Amino acid sequence: MAYTLKEIAELVGGAIIGIDQVLIRGINSLADAKEGEISLYADRRYEKELKETKASALLVAKVTDAYHGPQVVVPHPALAHARVAQLFSSPHPRFPGISERTVVHETSIIGTNPSIFPLVYVGEKARIGDEVILYPGVFVGDRVRIGNKTVIFPNVTILPDCVIGNEVVIRAGTVIGSDGFGFIRDGRRNVRVPQLGIVQIDDHVEIGANNCIDRAAMGKTWIKRGVKTDNLVHIAHNVVIGEDTLIAAQTAIGGSAHIGKEVVIGGQVAISDHIRIEDRVMIGSQSGVAKPLGPGEIVSGSPAMAHRLWLRTSGIIPRLPDLSERLRKLEKKVEGLANPSKSEKAE
Amino acid sequence: MAYTLKEIAELVGGAIIGIDQVLIRGINSLADAKEGEISLYADRRYEKELKETKASALLVAKVTDAYHGPQVVVPHPALAHARVAQLFSSPHPRFPGISERTVVHETSIIGTNPSIFPLVYVGEKARIGDEVILYPGVFVGDRVRIGNKTVIFPNVTILPDCVIGNEVVIRAGTVIGSDGFGFIRDGRRNVRVPQLGIVQIDDHVEIGANNCIDRAAMGKTWIKRGVKTDNLVHIAHNVVIGEDTLIAAQTAIGGSAHIGKEVVIGGQVAISDHIRIEDRVMIGSQSGVAKPLGPGEIVSGSPAMAHRLWLRTSGIIPRLPDLSERLRKLEKKVEGLANPSKSEKAE
Amino acid sequence: MAYTLKEIAELVGGAIIGIDQVLIRGINSLADAKEGEISLYADRRYEKELKETKASALLVAKVTDAYHGPQVVVPHPALAHARVAQLFSSPHPRFPGISERTVVHETSIIGTNPSIFPLVYVGEKARIGDEVILYPGVFVGDRVRIGNKTVIFPNVTILPDCVIGNEVVIRAGTVIGSDGFGFIRDGRRNVRVPQLGIVQIDDHVEIGANNCIDRAAMGKTWIKRGVKTDNLVHIAHNVVIGEDTLIAAQTAIGGSAHIGKEVVIGGQVAISDHIRIEDRVMIGSQSGVAKPLGPGEIVSGSPAMAHRLWLRTSGIIPRLPDLSERLRKLEKKVEGLANPSKSEKAE
Repeated sequence: MAYTLKEIAELVGGAIIGIDQVLIRGINSLADAKEGEISLYADRRYEKELKETKASALLVAKVTDAYHGPQVVVPHPALAHARVAQLFSSPHPRFPGISERTVVHETSIIGTNPSIFPLVYVGEKARIGDEVILYPGVFVGDRVRIGNKTVIFPNVTILPDCVIGNEVVIRAGTVIGSDGFGFIRDGRRNVRVPQLGIVQIDDHVEIGANNCIDRAAMGKTWIKRGVKTDNLVHIAHNVVIGEDTLIAAQTAIGGSAHIGKEVVIGGQVAISDHIRIEDRVMIGSQSGVAKPLGPGEIVSGSPAMAHRLWLRTSGIIPRLPDLSERLRKLEKKVEGLANPSKSEKAE
Repeated sequence: MAYTLKEIAELVGGAIIGIDQVLIRGINSLADAKEGEISLYADRRYEKELKETKASALLVAKVTDAYHGPQVVVPHPALAHARVAQLFSSPHPRFPGISERTVVHETSIIGTNPSIFPLVYVGEKARIGDEVILYPGVFVGDRVRIGNKTVIFPNVTILPDCVIGNEVVIRAGTVIGSDGFGFIRDGRRNVRVPQLGIVQIDDHVEIGANNCIDRAAMGKTWIKRGVKTDNLVHIAHNVVIGEDTLIAAQTAIGGSAHIGKEVVIGGQVAISDHIRIEDRVMIGSQSGVAKPLGPGEIVSGSPAMAHRLWLRTSGIIPRLPDLSERLRKLEKKVEGLANPSKSEKAE
Repeated sequence: MAYTLKEIAELVGGAIIGIDQVLIRGINSLADAKEGEISLYADRRYEKELKETKASALLVAKVTDAYHGPQVVVPHPALAHARVAQLFSSPHPRFPGISERTVVHETSIIGTNPSIFPLVYVGEKARIGDEVILYPGVFVGDRVRIGNKTVIFPNVTILPDCVIGNEVVIRAGTVIGSDGFGFIRDGRRNVRVPQLGIVQIDDHVEIGANNCIDRAAMGKTWIKRGVKTDNLVHIAHNVVIGEDTLIAAQTAIGGSAHIGKEVVIGGQVAISDHIRIEDRVMIGSQSGVAKPLGPGEIVSGSPAMAHRLWLRTSGIIPRLPDLSERLRKLEKKVEGLANPSKSEKAE
């Protein structure tokens, strides 16, 4: 697999400075790039690596003097990087057909060109689309439906009746459709509220590793088209997440929360039950969101506040001992002004 | 499966307003309910859905004018909902007997009426009770004991010597009995402290998905009767958790912490090593608990403080820039009062 | 397995007070120790248990009057405990050879004396060293390399091309080499950045249960010799972690962060992308680290600050309502001093 720099420049809509017939066989970081590989320079923190790189060409936002090989100038280097990396990425490894060492219940229907590895379990009346890959250790519960070209990584559990769309990716160890955490106190005991609903995951969603997405108490927990989650994310029962929303690692979304589309949620965020987050909101890492957020709001902190305000308050928090001391001194001084004689005696 | 509204009202101890012979075949949310289904109205946030619902009957706390079908008035609608949902919930899917495509060591003893799916591994000298369900991908280590009617979901790992009670549920991907995080520095290297103990889980406990409950260094990590945990919870070595305690998602409980009974712990809480939490404490989400808590305390925040106090302090934090500015102005003003001439010159 | 107290004292370099020929058959906590077991007393919180213990001998930092059996005085009781516990810990259970009920691709190479349990999957061209244990449910991807004496617990997923060293332990449910969370916005859609790199884990590393360690976008995510992680830890793409660093449960390390050696990171910490943490830093639980940290810094809080400062600020936070009220009163008082007549009228 090799491409001329000209071909690559055309793919990313860039302008070449230098020789355009260099052959490119891979993409790599500045530090690790070998001859024949292209790299990316878009961040000054990597100036040192730039000077020492062995890359045969660069994607850049603007021409740099510190590199003497050919450069492809692009408006958006990170996007260009993604496109070039796609050229050199391998397809997911496939098993040819359905392994004899796997268990597929006879009442289930599998589409064309399947890739079902050994040690998979597919329950009763499941419907699996075309060109689906199920890796070892995957559990597909009864009546689960999976669309076309979806990839389910090892040791994923998809519990009964859940619905997974087309071209979805679910990464290793994730659990889809576990019962929501629904308990009601009856005296001192906790009575389980049966979780009768499902999880529905729409097309082009990617779920990270070791996520937990719980089935709805009634109706569905719904992850809409294009949502991407990082690792170890918890999504409780009856949550709805809008199109193209991004959720970073270890975030927890409470029961029945509604998240809009194109929202960006940082890592280790907690969103309370029943909260509504509108479209295009951005939430900083470790935030605690217990109140609704309007369209486009940018928040941080726990409890969450406007990000700009949080920058200021979080700058003041380390100065609290100083503020406290200044207040104490000022009280004393004012006391002295109010009662001059007493104050003098005290001193 | 259908019940008259009269039967349902009797089950939940409710009073019917309207026709009591309506046939109910399911329960659903206000928005999703179809004809023949009962729903629940107990929260004003769902007033819109109430007006548009197609449910054939409602469970309500008090009669509402916005719905014209029959209503069952109950003192505790959420509990009534749980009871009615139990009527319509399916039993866990079962495998008839022990699959030939599973591995059960010949020295292990399995009780009556087992349901051991394909692709399960049961090690040596394990003792598994009656009517236990082990789903695909479950690992049961040597000498593990599991009580009657316990259900272990797919891809759960139960490491050697652990003891699981009766009617326990362990959800998918959870790890029971992994070695605790015990290391001692010896110079610059970390020396492992062998973890010689076990995990004991008592009757009626439910553990969520992708939890980690570590074995004790010595003795046992002990989850007592009726405890319920949500997803992605971490419970370190030698922790003891009292009866009927609830733990929400992504909470971490440090080594040797003792948690009382009927405690309620929110999501993403951190409890430090060796801390003692007494009975019926309530801990808000994202709290950091580094000090012991007495019976019935209600705390929030990191570091945790009385919940009422936390409500006030968390309201002040966003006002810190304002407070800081007011203090600065006041200092200047007091300076002016103390040194009137100097102050005038400065201006 | 029994040792005289003399043998034990020699192992830990301790001095015996009392009879040195007592036979010791195990080690246990003060509360659980039975006759023939040694225990440990090093923490006053366990004074009550000390008085009631049935242990036949004790490891102590200094002689105690509250116990009448033989005592072994050692400079570092916790380290002595670790050494004695190693005497009594069982080796990892082994399967003799390679199970017929496992799948190892014919192009893979397995070293001498393997222990590959049933229900394991090893892909193409993998290279597995000598005396490796792979438990049921383990997935080893194509071209993965695993060193000698490494132990992979049940239901672990190691994705293609990753490199695992010698004497590494990876605990149950962990995912190594999942794709990093790399997406670039192209208009409203999120375009995946292919993750072309690997994860490299060096010798003597121990990874806890249900961790996620993502492969690099390019190059490698690198966990160096002797690192130990607790459960549910997230390590993003291109992170580098230095030798002998400890990471407690539920911590998340953002993409391309560089962590030095002998660093100690508490539980539920978040470290932002691209941050550099130097050697021997200590980070308290629930901290949020968004700025680089120099060698040996000790920090806590979110945002992280010097630990000493954090102790003071976290003590002031619960007093904020009081501070706010005092400021308000002082403003009024100063107003009265500045405008005596007006103030009198107001009253």
